[in-house]
Amino acid sequence: MFGRGTVQMVQDSQNIQALLYSMSKAWNLHDARAYSMAFSEEADFTNVLGMSAYGRDSIVKFHEKSFTTIFKNSSLKMTGKKIRYITNDIIAVDVWWEMNGVRSPDGKNIPLRKGLANTLMTRHGDQWLILIMHNMNLPTS
Amino acid sequence: MFGRGTVQMVQDSQNIQALLYSMSKAWNLHDARAYSMAFSEEADFTNVLGMSAYGRDSIVKFHEKSFTTIFKNSSLKMTGKKIRYITNDIIAVDVWWEMNGVRSPDGKNIPLRKGLANTLMTRHGDQWLILIMHNMNLPTS
Repeated sequence: MFGRGTVQMVQDSQNIQALLYSMSKAWNLHDARAYSMAFSEEADFTNVLGMSAYGRDSIVKFHEKSFTTIFKNSSLKMTGKKIRYITNDIIAVDVWWEMNGVRSPDGKNIPLRKGLANTLMTRHGDQWLILIMHNMNLPTS
Repeated sequence: MFGRGTVQMVQDSQNIQALLYSMSKAWNLHDARAYSMAFSEEADFTNVLGMSAYGRDSIVKFHEKSFTTIFKNSSLKMTGKKIRYITNDIIAVDVWWEMNGVRSPDGKNIPLRKGLANTLMTRHGDQWLILIMHNMNLPTS
């Protein structure tokens, strides 16, 4: 349809898997700058409460705050992904995740969270970067 | 950047507004078929609980069920939108909404709901259709 071969699609899937791995690794180090490198400079980010940040630097600041508070001891695991090609260079990727160790603003332990991040990614050479991400909570039972 | 003029952007915005109006009108008539005409034939739809449907016909069936149960007396209002061009023919549109008259599966009245639908739309001549939509609840207070 857009001249994609199987080899290209496998390569794309591997590169996206690597990107998601870098994100969860950065999250688990509570490193907002490293986490934000998965986003392009002009990215739009919206969290599970509908709060937004525009641009990589704002996304860094947004996460720096929470990494010292509610997400200070949190750990993130990506549990699945679904890729849909829009063009050869634009893809929509749904990413399912689980998170442990979150605390509420008043310091209470929050049990296992599950969620779905829906992203739009664009190709940058061999790499993909997130241009838009919306995150949402999923029921845990 | 993609040869868009102001006139084109205003026209696009008006066409998208009309599309959103047709969706809320169809919702308020509880007409699943009319509601689903805002989606392209190959659309991916994901609701606030992470439940998905692929293709217009599945999206019709998905909503037919809930229009006879939890959404039987519901009314929907779109309260805002934000458009981001990805290319000249692909746009990301965030749509904020409010809903009244919802009942829980066990028949209880649910107070005002607020939410954010994030969509990817593609151009079809003068018209835009939703290719991907993810819906999420927002805090109401």
